[in-house]
Amino acid sequence: MALWDGRFSGGPAEEMLHFSESLTVDLRMFEEDIQGSVAHATMLSEVGLLSEEERDTLIDGLGRVAEELRTGAFQPGPELEDIHMAVEHRLGELVGEVAGKLHTARSRNDQVATDVRLWLKKMLPELEAGVQALVGVLLSRIRDDGRTLMPGYTHLQRGQPIWLGHQLLAHCWALMRDLERLQAARGRVDRCPLGAGAMAGTPHPVDRVRTAELLGFSGVLENAMDAVSARDHSQEVAAACAILMTRLSRMAAELVLFSSSEFGLLKLGDAWSTGSSIMPQKRNPDAAELVRGKSARVFGNLQTLLSLSKGLPLAYMRDLQEDREALFGSVQTTLACVSVMAGTWRDLWVHSERYAEELEGDFLLATELADYLVDKGLPFREAHHVVGRLVLWCEERGGNFSLLDLNVLREHHSLFGEDALSFLDPVTAIERRTSLGGTAWSEVERQCALLDTQLQEMNTAE
Amino acid sequence: MALWDGRFSGGPAEEMLHFSESLTVDLRMFEEDIQGSVAHATMLSEVGLLSEEERDTLIDGLGRVAEELRTGAFQPGPELEDIHMAVEHRLGELVGEVAGKLHTARSRNDQVATDVRLWLKKMLPELEAGVQALVGVLLSRIRDDGRTLMPGYTHLQRGQPIWLGHQLLAHCWALMRDLERLQAARGRVDRCPLGAGAMAGTPHPVDRVRTAELLGFSGVLENAMDAVSARDHSQEVAAACAILMTRLSRMAAELVLFSSSEFGLLKLGDAWSTGSSIMPQKRNPDAAELVRGKSARVFGNLQTLLSLSKGLPLAYMRDLQEDREALFGSVQTTLACVSVMAGTWRDLWVHSERYAEELEGDFLLATELADYLVDKGLPFREAHHVVGRLVLWCEERGGNFSLLDLNVLREHHSLFGEDALSFLDPVTAIERRTSLGGTAWSEVERQCALLDTQLQEMNTAE
Amino acid sequence: MALWDGRFSGGPAEEMLHFSESLTVDLRMFEEDIQGSVAHATMLSEVGLLSEEERDTLIDGLGRVAEELRTGAFQPGPELEDIHMAVEHRLGELVGEVAGKLHTARSRNDQVATDVRLWLKKMLPELEAGVQALVGVLLSRIRDDGRTLMPGYTHLQRGQPIWLGHQLLAHCWALMRDLERLQAARGRVDRCPLGAGAMAGTPHPVDRVRTAELLGFSGVLENAMDAVSARDHSQEVAAACAILMTRLSRMAAELVLFSSSEFGLLKLGDAWSTGSSIMPQKRNPDAAELVRGKSARVFGNLQTLLSLSKGLPLAYMRDLQEDREALFGSVQTTLACVSVMAGTWRDLWVHSERYAEELEGDFLLATELADYLVDKGLPFREAHHVVGRLVLWCEERGGNFSLLDLNVLREHHSLFGEDALSFLDPVTAIERRTSLGGTAWSEVERQCALLDTQLQEMNTAE
Amino acid sequence: MALWDGRFSGGPAEEMLHFSESLTVDLRMFEEDIQGSVAHATMLSEVGLLSEEERDTLIDGLGRVAEELRTGAFQPGPELEDIHMAVEHRLGELVGEVAGKLHTARSRNDQVATDVRLWLKKMLPELEAGVQALVGVLLSRIRDDGRTLMPGYTHLQRGQPIWLGHQLLAHCWALMRDLERLQAARGRVDRCPLGAGAMAGTPHPVDRVRTAELLGFSGVLENAMDAVSARDHSQEVAAACAILMTRLSRMAAELVLFSSSEFGLLKLGDAWSTGSSIMPQKRNPDAAELVRGKSARVFGNLQTLLSLSKGLPLAYMRDLQEDREALFGSVQTTLACVSVMAGTWRDLWVHSERYAEELEGDFLLATELADYLVDKGLPFREAHHVVGRLVLWCEERGGNFSLLDLNVLREHHSLFGEDALSFLDPVTAIERRTSLGGTAWSEVERQCALLDTQLQEMNTAE
Repeated sequence: MALWDGRFSGGPAEEMLHFSESLTVDLRMFEEDIQGSVAHATMLSEVGLLSEEERDTLIDGLGRVAEELRTGAFQPGPELEDIHMAVEHRLGELVGEVAGKLHTARSRNDQVATDVRLWLKKMLPELEAGVQALVGVLLSRIRDDGRTLMPGYTHLQRGQPIWLGHQLLAHCWALMRDLERLQAARGRVDRCPLGAGAMAGTPHPVDRVRTAELLGFSGVLENAMDAVSARDHSQEVAAACAILMTRLSRMAAELVLFSSSEFGLLKLGDAWSTGSSIMPQKRNPDAAELVRGKSARVFGNLQTLLSLSKGLPLAYMRDLQEDREALFGSVQTTLACVSVMAGTWRDLWVHSERYAEELEGDFLLATELADYLVDKGLPFREAHHVVGRLVLWCEERGGNFSLLDLNVLREHHSLFGEDALSFLDPVTAIERRTSLGGTAWSEVERQCALLDTQLQEMNTAE
Repeated sequence: MALWDGRFSGGPAEEMLHFSESLTVDLRMFEEDIQGSVAHATMLSEVGLLSEEERDTLIDGLGRVAEELRTGAFQPGPELEDIHMAVEHRLGELVGEVAGKLHTARSRNDQVATDVRLWLKKMLPELEAGVQALVGVLLSRIRDDGRTLMPGYTHLQRGQPIWLGHQLLAHCWALMRDLERLQAARGRVDRCPLGAGAMAGTPHPVDRVRTAELLGFSGVLENAMDAVSARDHSQEVAAACAILMTRLSRMAAELVLFSSSEFGLLKLGDAWSTGSSIMPQKRNPDAAELVRGKSARVFGNLQTLLSLSKGLPLAYMRDLQEDREALFGSVQTTLACVSVMAGTWRDLWVHSERYAEELEGDFLLATELADYLVDKGLPFREAHHVVGRLVLWCEERGGNFSLLDLNVLREHHSLFGEDALSFLDPVTAIERRTSLGGTAWSEVERQCALLDTQLQEMNTAE
Repeated sequence: MALWDGRFSGGPAEEMLHFSESLTVDLRMFEEDIQGSVAHATMLSEVGLLSEEERDTLIDGLGRVAEELRTGAFQPGPELEDIHMAVEHRLGELVGEVAGKLHTARSRNDQVATDVRLWLKKMLPELEAGVQALVGVLLSRIRDDGRTLMPGYTHLQRGQPIWLGHQLLAHCWALMRDLERLQAARGRVDRCPLGAGAMAGTPHPVDRVRTAELLGFSGVLENAMDAVSARDHSQEVAAACAILMTRLSRMAAELVLFSSSEFGLLKLGDAWSTGSSIMPQKRNPDAAELVRGKSARVFGNLQTLLSLSKGLPLAYMRDLQEDREALFGSVQTTLACVSVMAGTWRDLWVHSERYAEELEGDFLLATELADYLVDKGLPFREAHHVVGRLVLWCEERGGNFSLLDLNVLREHHSLFGEDALSFLDPVTAIERRTSLGGTAWSEVERQCALLDTQLQEMNTAE
Repeated sequence: MALWDGRFSGGPAEEMLHFSESLTVDLRMFEEDIQGSVAHATMLSEVGLLSEEERDTLIDGLGRVAEELRTGAFQPGPELEDIHMAVEHRLGELVGEVAGKLHTARSRNDQVATDVRLWLKKMLPELEAGVQALVGVLLSRIRDDGRTLMPGYTHLQRGQPIWLGHQLLAHCWALMRDLERLQAARGRVDRCPLGAGAMAGTPHPVDRVRTAELLGFSGVLENAMDAVSARDHSQEVAAACAILMTRLSRMAAELVLFSSSEFGLLKLGDAWSTGSSIMPQKRNPDAAELVRGKSARVFGNLQTLLSLSKGLPLAYMRDLQEDREALFGSVQTTLACVSVMAGTWRDLWVHSERYAEELEGDFLLATELADYLVDKGLPFREAHHVVGRLVLWCEERGGNFSLLDLNVLREHHSLFGEDALSFLDPVTAIERRTSLGGTAWSEVERQCALLDTQLQEMNTAE
């Protein structure tokens, strides 16, 4: 018996039952559904809409339903439509007709809106903790291997020599902004819709502020129609996840690249790589690839959520039911990817000598020569041009800057002096870049300390 | 024991097992996986790579694995990674070490590519049949209620009177193009990758054409690297589904709209609507809303599939594993929506008299008056202008064209004659539109007959 | 002559010039490019890298370039690649070789990153002001017409009677959250990348904090590699725009719907509707339709931005150049739509009597009868059931609740008393819903006042 | 004066004019608009709705408008709304009031639908020719450098040795399927909507088949409402472009990767790379990066087109105007990328000796040893395991298979014989893979010949 069957003679088609049920997805938030009902019952009794006895019966019954769902003793089928009906139905079986009173002054519209918000209030801090842990792992890695020489790339071409720590810090700072975004989104989530009813409020003397307080919300949604039809908070969370996933996808791409034979900078741990069914030598960066792949899903989910509510008149439309699978999927996928990325970076080896020799005389030192000329007073553009010709001169001879001596330098420009050759050392080149945010080790250390402080402040704040 | 553990000492992290397993999704295609293995074993024995006895043992064992999967006697866990490993593992338990021979001359890369194509070869005809059935339901409805008078809308403003059949035929023709697209996509799916190995082919004397034949493919993929890394056929299927879903979403929007109190043209059957938990009078068009909502998921899935393979170098990358959930989801969702849409249109009532009176004198007859003047020789633009002023004249008097008489017409233009007033009848207006594809009933009937023929030819062709 | 041609012999293909130029898009931010160069020159002179004379020459020259770009006296062609090169090239023509010094300690990578952030710092406050203005227009409308009786819809079925003001407030509150999101995104935008160089910082003694200060940034990006390769702030702005556009698309859909003949609640002003080339009576809600349509573009742009940076290793990759067209397009489109939506709501008419009679006895009062029974002590679910049967009873007789009298009520449940019939008045029904956020007029007024205060505080804060 | 101003008193707001105009985008199809009008006029005269003189006047005038648009003598402003109005307006100025007769029996709805289809009928063959040319360039490259030894990658880990030609052929075959998709989409485009009127057909005795014939269409759209509201053909074209762009993005990623210092397999030509403003040594693969980046735009456009028409009731809605920018953008972007990709592959150098030494003894030969054991009768899975241990043995000694001798092999498995070591030669390994589609040179040649034939047949067919 569906709750609304007072006047329907035919009843839904069997096919319709399966098509429209959302239980499969909603079961993930049964704890929140019951939590919401307990708070609602408490408030109803406080304002006199339930007797204390009724309240106790309901709350006790709800506790039993929760326990049955946890243990699997109660496994609701699709004919119960959604988690709200499932809980109410079982509650009715357990406590009798008083169960019907629980629906006073609320509808499924505000109930589902509340459940989703409670679920997000639980999951977002987990996700934020995961991101903080990932930054922590990267900072550890920088302490251990940050002073590994490597090429800094632009366009995947070698640009200038850097410390590995410089590159990892770029990801750390981006992750800190992801944290900011998740926290901001949490602010929009943290408002309670319960008591909005179907969309117009209720004539019963409910105390919405009290329910919100009981559920740990910071405030209420001020308008009942907005409360049941708003989905912007879900979109915002999904967008924050998608943006975070672009970051993880970029980190993943580097893991794939740097662990290739050709780059050979990293060796992934057994725990996060797999072999091949046909090629016995393979150590595939599966974890990283999957993270990158899953980013596409999280993008797709965001598109689903946006397109879903496009052009829908207020208030609740059943279309909106489709938002949970995408939203839950994005949050849980992102959470898993954050954790896997942390594990992967924690368990890998850095071949710290990989580039030690290879970068001697490498063209990536070209900027050093140009900077040398600029220091001597040449406009940068002209210096750039001169060094371009030096590169060409070496290329034509099949070598790199190791071919250069003072004579050759002077043939290209008279401002070159004896000290110019000393600019062709990668570590010197790195350590000269002491500008704020530059790759010099002092700057790497400064940033690590700053990040440590910021992470600590976040933990203290909570 | 994973199949590739010959040289891995640590083994995957427990977390990695859950993160990387694809069994949950792949189980949907266990029949295809076993079907592929049976064909592979058959071919291997035909070319002498397996003895007949080995082949029989393998095929018999595979049959038992299939049966166990069907009955649930074998329920593989995530440690078995994917459906291929699950089947091979269980096969090994059942038939012993000969199971290892089945992997001769193939890898999981070509195996999964084959499974997905076989799954699509099974599902696409189902989807096509579903679309044909939907067109059939609409044609039935046109036969029953097609001659219902209603406004034709552009911009959701009343434009010109039409028969309901005219509008439904617009959807029919669009669905016929969806059918064409699905069939075209099937052509790209229908090529067999099996035998491509990891990406470079195999030194074993396999007969790929024979395997393809055994599996019912029309041909083989000519290049081994393409065979394992191509995903364009999945994208094409997902795109055809997405385009079809835009059509269903438009039909769904009309169902929602036309069954509102204000439009009141349709009443949905109990089987495809539901009530409200709080508002006892509601008969909500849930099926239609869900179809519209699910279209957003199918769009999101397509974006996932495109973004997923963006920028991936050849050949197989683990990212691609993520394609199945999106692809399967799109095909199954679209199939369900097509069927629900057919059910909804089959079980509804048309209020055939809804607009009978309301369109008398309605401004949607304005084009008729303009056409009248054009027939009398006025350039269309001028006629349009004259009638615009007539509309204004009526609006200012708070009424519609029912206020007009010959005098008023003549005041606005001298070309109006006595017969002009007869143009203000909606049915006359409809029946004048006999141009190819116009709304006149003769054209509705012509199109129905043509669609019947085309559907019949499709069925005969198969 | 390209700036990097020191060692390229062939030069780019003509086709490549057109393919790779970004001037067409970048011209939108020429003011910001020059503003950044002025600040850079100022800082360079302060730290001794430029003489005061050089600085003055450069700043004066930059001012002339800006003027020439404003007036169109300088119209750079595609061979100048991008706005940075265009400005530098023209500067060189105007002030000679000192122009080359301006590129000391910066690269195009940090330069373009700075320009985009400056552009966003200019545009986001405009967009926020636009949203505030839109809320203001809606509040005005509520003051004028908010007490118009209308059905509150869920599933586009009539649910409960509401004041129009209740529905408009739902949009207002959602727009306030959009404002919060835009402000939050602005926080991430407001950090200066200038001085990061190509990705590794610079050996020159630059003062990045000073440059940031000169440009009005609140802070600097702490890591040079992050500074040039981060695009999360662009994605966040585009996401905030997309979410705002879902809101506008919902408002637009209501405008289209409510101005249809069938709903007939609104009449759009001439300024925001258009007619038809063929149907003289049409008054099409084009503005609203275009807003809804443009939301799809803004969603697409967000997907472009996410997919664009997916899987890109650090640091700058040329792919990222493609972000501007999508980002600028989203911001400018959203800005235009916000303004058009405000205009449309400002210039329309509400038919305030549209539903006055039609809702008498309408089934949307069913919840009232159920509430009546609940007040008398019946559990809600049972009350719901009883009223469902009452609806059926009326439906079977072809009418609505106007058919009911006390006898009929009592036949359905003995708890009905004489006062029950008085619950069947729409305005009474509305005014009973005084719960926080309910549709009662007192709640509408409370929210309006609260919104007024919040808007005022925002304005004061700036 | 707008064409529909007969009854609007206010006229559109200046802001609305700019918001709603589509001229900027539509100008790209002015030739098609005039072509459609010429055909319409011809047909109108043939059926007696225009005199021959009127027809000649109109066609002559249309020719003059076209000429003025080509030369820029006529530059329509936004107040003319769209290309149809612009042409009609100018025609009126040139030929007087007879211009108004051209709009007999058509509306802007069918006119714009026709224009877009004509534009696609012109562009799709260009795009197909571009793809054919790209396949041709790749085939040329295979002839020149196809026999270059390189690692075949899966997961970007070295898998098995292949010829470069094998990898390039994978792209060729995928491009051939892209061609099939474009041709299929062209079939759906090639049906004429002209004469559908606003949506209901027309009472005038038009001959739609004749107009279609005059415009070179293969057929007509059978239903007038479908004709004006269908957008599935645009979505299909945009989807075919998006799928093609995933291919180009994968090719682009390989160009970026293979031209890095670490991979060092390719050197890009000057024509398709650029340098750096700050790093004089850089030769950046900009063309490839931009192709990859632009793929994201084409994906975004497809989402725009799908989301755009989601949930729109029939018939024409103004939302649909937004489809052109996305559609045109996708087609033109894809066309440009196809051409740039061809140029890039045409003008690069392959370092054909890059991997000659490096692959001697490389672990990517592991499969060879496993295959050796399989040939000797060991089940594949066991062979795989044995070789995995051999890899581990070498890794532990810091080397690769070059460390192996017969003794070591036999210690790992007794089936190894003297000939086993000969399997450790990359070229031998390649040439053993003669299965259909394998990497052996004979298979490369076979596929090249087959592709040549297929391309030739396509050209002949046209």
